[in-house]
Amino acid sequence: MEPTLAQLSSAIDATWVMVSAILVILMQVGFALLEAGSTRMKNAGHVAGKTVLTFGICSIAFWALGFGLTFGDGNSFLGLSGFFFDGNSTDSFSAFSAATVPISILFLFQLAFCAVSLAIAWGGFAERAKLSIYFIFSVLFTVLIYPVVGHWVWGGGWLAQLGMQDFAGSTVVHLQGAIVALVATILLKPRLGKYNRDGSSNLIPGHNQVYSVLGVLFLWIGWFGFNAGSTLGSTSGFFGYIAMTTNLATAAGAVAALAISWIVMGKADIPSMLNGVLAALVAITASCAFVDPWAAVLIGAVSGILTFYTSIWFDRIGIDDPIFAFSVHGVAGIWGTLSTGLFATPELAEKVGVGGPGLFYGGGFHQLGVQALGLVGAIVYVFVISYIILSVLKATIGLRVTEEEEVVGLDLSEHGGYGYPELLQPERVQPTATAKASASHTLS
Amino acid sequence: MEPTLAQLSSAIDATWVMVSAILVILMQVGFALLEAGSTRMKNAGHVAGKTVLTFGICSIAFWALGFGLTFGDGNSFLGLSGFFFDGNSTDSFSAFSAATVPISILFLFQLAFCAVSLAIAWGGFAERAKLSIYFIFSVLFTVLIYPVVGHWVWGGGWLAQLGMQDFAGSTVVHLQGAIVALVATILLKPRLGKYNRDGSSNLIPGHNQVYSVLGVLFLWIGWFGFNAGSTLGSTSGFFGYIAMTTNLATAAGAVAALAISWIVMGKADIPSMLNGVLAALVAITASCAFVDPWAAVLIGAVSGILTFYTSIWFDRIGIDDPIFAFSVHGVAGIWGTLSTGLFATPELAEKVGVGGPGLFYGGGFHQLGVQALGLVGAIVYVFVISYIILSVLKATIGLRVTEEEEVVGLDLSEHGGYGYPELLQPERVQPTATAKASASHTLS
Amino acid sequence: MEPTLAQLSSAIDATWVMVSAILVILMQVGFALLEAGSTRMKNAGHVAGKTVLTFGICSIAFWALGFGLTFGDGNSFLGLSGFFFDGNSTDSFSAFSAATVPISILFLFQLAFCAVSLAIAWGGFAERAKLSIYFIFSVLFTVLIYPVVGHWVWGGGWLAQLGMQDFAGSTVVHLQGAIVALVATILLKPRLGKYNRDGSSNLIPGHNQVYSVLGVLFLWIGWFGFNAGSTLGSTSGFFGYIAMTTNLATAAGAVAALAISWIVMGKADIPSMLNGVLAALVAITASCAFVDPWAAVLIGAVSGILTFYTSIWFDRIGIDDPIFAFSVHGVAGIWGTLSTGLFATPELAEKVGVGGPGLFYGGGFHQLGVQALGLVGAIVYVFVISYIILSVLKATIGLRVTEEEEVVGLDLSEHGGYGYPELLQPERVQPTATAKASASHTLS
Repeated sequence: MEPTLAQLSSAIDATWVMVSAILVILMQVGFALLEAGSTRMKNAGHVAGKTVLTFGICSIAFWALGFGLTFGDGNSFLGLSGFFFDGNSTDSFSAFSAATVPISILFLFQLAFCAVSLAIAWGGFAERAKLSIYFIFSVLFTVLIYPVVGHWVWGGGWLAQLGMQDFAGSTVVHLQGAIVALVATILLKPRLGKYNRDGSSNLIPGHNQVYSVLGVLFLWIGWFGFNAGSTLGSTSGFFGYIAMTTNLATAAGAVAALAISWIVMGKADIPSMLNGVLAALVAITASCAFVDPWAAVLIGAVSGILTFYTSIWFDRIGIDDPIFAFSVHGVAGIWGTLSTGLFATPELAEKVGVGGPGLFYGGGFHQLGVQALGLVGAIVYVFVISYIILSVLKATIGLRVTEEEEVVGLDLSEHGGYGYPELLQPERVQPTATAKASASHTLS
Repeated sequence: MEPTLAQLSSAIDATWVMVSAILVILMQVGFALLEAGSTRMKNAGHVAGKTVLTFGICSIAFWALGFGLTFGDGNSFLGLSGFFFDGNSTDSFSAFSAATVPISILFLFQLAFCAVSLAIAWGGFAERAKLSIYFIFSVLFTVLIYPVVGHWVWGGGWLAQLGMQDFAGSTVVHLQGAIVALVATILLKPRLGKYNRDGSSNLIPGHNQVYSVLGVLFLWIGWFGFNAGSTLGSTSGFFGYIAMTTNLATAAGAVAALAISWIVMGKADIPSMLNGVLAALVAITASCAFVDPWAAVLIGAVSGILTFYTSIWFDRIGIDDPIFAFSVHGVAGIWGTLSTGLFATPELAEKVGVGGPGLFYGGGFHQLGVQALGLVGAIVYVFVISYIILSVLKATIGLRVTEEEEVVGLDLSEHGGYGYPELLQPERVQPTATAKASASHTLS
Repeated sequence: MEPTLAQLSSAIDATWVMVSAILVILMQVGFALLEAGSTRMKNAGHVAGKTVLTFGICSIAFWALGFGLTFGDGNSFLGLSGFFFDGNSTDSFSAFSAATVPISILFLFQLAFCAVSLAIAWGGFAERAKLSIYFIFSVLFTVLIYPVVGHWVWGGGWLAQLGMQDFAGSTVVHLQGAIVALVATILLKPRLGKYNRDGSSNLIPGHNQVYSVLGVLFLWIGWFGFNAGSTLGSTSGFFGYIAMTTNLATAAGAVAALAISWIVMGKADIPSMLNGVLAALVAITASCAFVDPWAAVLIGAVSGILTFYTSIWFDRIGIDDPIFAFSVHGVAGIWGTLSTGLFATPELAEKVGVGGPGLFYGGGFHQLGVQALGLVGAIVYVFVISYIILSVLKATIGLRVTEEEEVVGLDLSEHGGYGYPELLQPERVQPTATAKASASHTLS
């Protein structure tokens, strides 16, 4: 029995989206490396290990509830069906009525997106939150936070109806995670030793730049699935164009961020460059399908520079965001979401079938306004709900480990053993973080 | 000249199976990281490096003999044709007569499976076997061990004729490797310093939990090729369902294993969680195509708990299995193979076309009996043949390095230089393994 | 509206080539790990970080100029159109007239190749070149060096017209990068401490063999995209055969190189084995589509042995090539390019549609002569142009950091902070490289 043309087309699309889902799951490797590399040795096992744990919890919670809340049929604000997804039935998912791909693959792809958003959020918890918070908040994020804005933009909700352009989720995935990270880092307060009594801040360098670089490379690679997979198919060939704009923006972000750090600080700072790469990836996520190559280069370069300055500014005003989650995913997420309102071309907006051209392509301020409205909606909802959730957790079980636990490190306090047992011994852990400082006293 | 529908269908399947083969080869990265991270610094170069060596040897031996012995036409017990595979001819491979994919790709996919089984076996040799054993045993495993059970189940042998359900190889790949690891660790005896005179055991922590976590993440990712690629095609769309059940089980294994370690030991032990992830992957390997999503969650969670308790038990009875190969791949391999006899649904058994429904779906004890019979056959064969082979090697060239070589580490003894030359110097290597112990004497 | 058979065929090809492009970009992870692992801790952040920077610069420069210079319509020596590539238009690219894949994907695939060639070149600059050189030379390589030979062989130039067989780029990608590395290492002079006054050389071991092993595994995996993706499609199924010959050659290279090191040096040297893997990959790159499986095994094994001896020989004659770029990519690139002139079969040469059979298959010396001519052309051009460019840079801004900067390491001198700040402190950096030497004086 020969397959039909439509079946083959569906199979091709399915193959590409499955590959993309795997690439997006590979981004968990990227986050584990980036976050472990950007923090201290005494927390490395914890930081890497919690990636596996929270991806696991998110997978179960998204299957049970999150998928249905985001994409299930419901109203303009929330999906209300398709819980405990059976892997086959499309009955409750009219948001996917145009998709040619088996819904099990769409499930995996969307789960991977939610898990990326959650991984971004953890940046704000790093090096001081209790392990129990990771357990509880993984569920709450997957069920109460992510699905709401996800439904608004991608599940047929009110922002979808307005024509908001967020192709692969600068707002839905990145900005949501970033706002949670910001709220968390505000409620958790800075790490011990981060700020001096006069308010000046100390550098707490990550322990392994090779890890950080590799993490960013894996994120870059995984993002080809993130953006080019968001076509939900390869039959049209359009996924190639999207991969190309994504790569151009990212390259520009890397170069611009390293250059600006060299010019401003007098040194070519590698963490700044890595933030530039990620910021460009975040920004082009919304606009990759809507803009010309030159605009992609510009969007990426601007992202790299924006993130450089905002990360310095947040550090100065007393917000200790250890992995720069808000500068990278938040600021660039806002810029990327607005960028389609500026640079979307008429041809590409029509091709994608969402919204219209941007300001610089004759669209006036309409699309820019829709983008701004979507941003306001997402920011307000996520800030408020995450502030409430985390405040309740703080008031009840507490968010943060004790000072002593923080000083010895989360590997010992939360897991009972160092991640690097041959390099660290309890008496060698230093209370201050800066590697160059010769510690005057040690813990016993 | 336009391609036909059948040619296009074949090309789609070929593309997916090639991607899957690459993902399964990526699991070698996972094993290298997991095994290096779970052992000591003085052995790290050796442990990682031998992965490349043995994958190389296995590739040549599988091409020359293993592929023909496993899948070539022969009798119910062994394949006997198709040696020194030419890359094109399907004449000797009627086991693949229904496959739509070029046989060169099937070769690569099956080679990757054999190499995974071999990588599992090495867990039992870790930190004390001679390098020459890796050379010799790679060939013997690929030629004398793996092909036999492989032929029985997947090459048209007697277990295939009975309808044994082992979709992607809980028995064929994982249990085989695990039994070899068990035999090896019994014959090699425990590592120096592992057990005290009173029989109590010491913890020998791995040197880098970040590596271990990354290794497990890469294995998780590679497993999408392992399980979902075992459809040998993507045209039907069924591969998406399999990827979904695989991911659900794995997530449940991670959460269950971390939770049980926290409850029982009072600490959320990261290595236990990682074992839970792998055990769940191993168990769902047989059943991923046969079971409902809820059953996948249950199978995974049970795997995580089983592995936690059995790994403690093996440690207590004096079996030093450094990478927990038998608890993870053996116990969970048995559980996973039995699980289809319990949870296989009539619809899915018919869809796959192998065996019938399980006990809880009205199939009675028939399928469970077939699964148990297959397990007994595989365990007996692999235990006996590997015991004979390794005993002969032990009696002739010897399996184990000298005590002094083991103390200084295999990097120095087998390869002439440390894997971390700036962190280790000969005089710094400690005779006892626990990092917290302050060594009272050092080697010069 | 149903897709046509031709559209579906194109979509299948596009999916495979996109996957391949991503795999080739993944090779940047491999280079970052291999190069960082093979150098010292004090340079690790720099070595890894510059991978991201130079991939970024190369991406922009290839989009602006390199792609058009290599593949754009022009004359027999250079492409002269298609600059600032718009992502869609095929008007200026008649070299791709037979391709079925969207040109945006071909762009990404070819960019990834150019970036691999550049990554190889950096091997010769390692541990002593200024960061500014990486900025400038990335552009010059992408615009003035790579496109010329690329156009000759793959862009319809004079070597393409002669029927030179270089399927995936032993010459175009690997030899070009290797020659630049050779010129760079000659002009930069050896690293401090590499050679003694009597001309004898010291071993400067890399700091992390686990990284090096992982790097090689990622390169091996990425190479499936490199070679099997160079079919520019999967509809024919031929990509599977190519992946198989690639894997066989590589396996043989690993085993041969480890064995020869064991026999000659009395120790099974892991870096030698890793070089053998890479050399075999480099050699089979030209010939993977033209040769029988047994010839692939032979080509790989010979590569492993050739690289072992030549790397020792270069070290002896005073050429300090820190990552063995010329032995691995140069010598094996030459051998691989010649190998099709020996082993190309008539059937495969006809299937690929380039050149004719080799000497051992009745083709006489014709194809071997074409291969040799191509090699001479490529070597002369790349040697001369890179010698001129690097000499001008040396005479103007200078290639090398100061002695003091080299001693403290490039992480501090070029980037302002260590890659491993908790393991290295300024006063701990040692002026001599060999880890076993107890340093008699230290920098403050």
